[in-house]
Amino acid sequence: MIHNLALAGCGNVGTALLEILNEKRAELSERHGFNFRVTLITDLMKGTVLEPEGLDLEKVLKDLKESNSLDSFPKAQGAFGELLERSRSTMMAEATPTNLKTGEPGLTHIRTALSRGIHVTTTNKGPVSVAFDELTTLAKSCGAKFRYEGVVMSGTPLLQMLQYGMAGCTVQKIEGILNGTTNFILTKMNESGSSYADALDEATSLGYAEADPSGDVEGWDAAGKVSILAKVIFGKNIPVSEVDRQGITCVTPEKIKEASENGYAVKLIAGLNMLNGIPYAYVTPKEIPLSHPLASIKGATNAVSITTDNLGEVTLIGPGAGRRETGQALLVDLIAMCKD
Amino acid sequence: MIHNLALAGCGNVGTALLEILNEKRAELSERHGFNFRVTLITDLMKGTVLEPEGLDLEKVLKDLKESNSLDSFPKAQGAFGELLERSRSTMMAEATPTNLKTGEPGLTHIRTALSRGIHVTTTNKGPVSVAFDELTTLAKSCGAKFRYEGVVMSGTPLLQMLQYGMAGCTVQKIEGILNGTTNFILTKMNESGSSYADALDEATSLGYAEADPSGDVEGWDAAGKVSILAKVIFGKNIPVSEVDRQGITCVTPEKIKEASENGYAVKLIAGLNMLNGIPYAYVTPKEIPLSHPLASIKGATNAVSITTDNLGEVTLIGPGAGRRETGQALLVDLIAMCKD
Repeated sequence: MIHNLALAGCGNVGTALLEILNEKRAELSERHGFNFRVTLITDLMKGTVLEPEGLDLEKVLKDLKESNSLDSFPKAQGAFGELLERSRSTMMAEATPTNLKTGEPGLTHIRTALSRGIHVTTTNKGPVSVAFDELTTLAKSCGAKFRYEGVVMSGTPLLQMLQYGMAGCTVQKIEGILNGTTNFILTKMNESGSSYADALDEATSLGYAEADPSGDVEGWDAAGKVSILAKVIFGKNIPVSEVDRQGITCVTPEKIKEASENGYAVKLIAGLNMLNGIPYAYVTPKEIPLSHPLASIKGATNAVSITTDNLGEVTLIGPGAGRRETGQALLVDLIAMCKD
Repeated sequence: MIHNLALAGCGNVGTALLEILNEKRAELSERHGFNFRVTLITDLMKGTVLEPEGLDLEKVLKDLKESNSLDSFPKAQGAFGELLERSRSTMMAEATPTNLKTGEPGLTHIRTALSRGIHVTTTNKGPVSVAFDELTTLAKSCGAKFRYEGVVMSGTPLLQMLQYGMAGCTVQKIEGILNGTTNFILTKMNESGSSYADALDEATSLGYAEADPSGDVEGWDAAGKVSILAKVIFGKNIPVSEVDRQGITCVTPEKIKEASENGYAVKLIAGLNMLNGIPYAYVTPKEIPLSHPLASIKGATNAVSITTDNLGEVTLIGPGAGRRETGQALLVDLIAMCKD
């Protein structure tokens, strides 16, 4: 069985998905009995290419590698819905840049696809934050599937575990390290005793932190992820602005050293707690006992501990970002949607 | 939608499943749109009770609690297949005691159910170890589903994660702490400096270790789990006898102390490694760097680190045993089989 796949957004993550699909062609057929052919790629910078019989992935990847373009292919024009139809896509992977205010351009892509019954996976936090209810309702009414494993912890299967692997459990509490940049900085401050400013400089020079690091260090990114978890797990709307949020700018090397001497590690913890049926969401630097797995999380790695009635505490540790890791999130959703 | 459920084996785990089903009646309907009614319970000690319209769970649980029996109910007689048919079961949860040599009585229960198209979940390592290929083939040919989340790490969703959450990844290596008893003993030796013999005594008095502890401390239990993982993940037969196995009886407090001073924790590691396409399976005490999450695993907790091409290392930590934790493994499989 061959599924026609549209890719919206061909940056790092979209390209990684194409690479994985190209590498794993034989394995996917053998193991799962189906495969994908990419019939549409659209990207704001690189233009739109379309081939209902399947684009030549080797050639696409050569173009992307050599000139960061799709210039070997004739460009297609048209509204997004029309392109989806001409490409006969039955699934779409959405990996355009995140806009947490409007959700665009991902939101329009996803609406357009779902309303045509095309299954969608996205790694884009924007549409999921802005329009989760609308999109899940639309998917249901159009008989399409909508998945978004990559919006938290990239391909580390946190959402899959919460929604399927722990089905039947009642989640009481979630606490985790959901921002790699701040964990890198705190790890650095702990290991080398460097100041916050020096550790931030190193994170920036290594590409972990952006030129304006406030989204990470003030806890906005982690708060956005907690807000998504509140929706997905508890079905509750907690806008980012209502997350009780404190970043790491006030954490000093002295504080970290003192905590360490007392048997604790300082971590930026994003949490969700059910208090009398009302979820309380927060992001705050917290002292974690060294005996707890979250204290051992180093560098840019992410981790989440989930407390439930049936299982007590379960902890999942894995990458929180990365091009191939996030491409994997798209792939795992595509495989699940083919199997459902 | 109501599913008729048969329960084979009503000991600790089976009873825990009944308790959870009774507690979560409303939640299951509300959240998943289906529910279960238990139409058959059969247990070697407690006899067989049957009611195609659904047994009164409150009354069953009262009986079990007050007299560890099912004596308020008239007993049914007959061959197992006939009982399944009379009870009109469409699903079966199998939780009889484990026999790693013959797989019985679970093996017969599972064969009988699958051959009638009845979906099966089991927490019983016996049948899965002894007849994995036969049972998966039988399930397929009869249009029945066969799941076994609870055979490794109880309800901690390791198998679900490997088979679904990480689909599309190629697993290169698995290393974990899969036996709670030995990890309890090693933790004790590390924290209080006690000898192996003293720590074992404590584990026995707390009910973690059995009267004959060799299954745990010689690494047989962990080897059995590695053998199952080799089958489930790599599709390879590695009999327990071919697992390169060393237990913890030779571990001394001095060795643990020395490792700790050098920044390591001694853990009984069960591993599977792909070497040139051939999986190598082992169980051995190993020094784990304190910076690695596996070093932080205390007491009877289990944990597994999985190394893959697309995600690097992902670690899952959770309970490895417990009546409710293992009952949850049955429940999560039942939910998945209803949704598939």
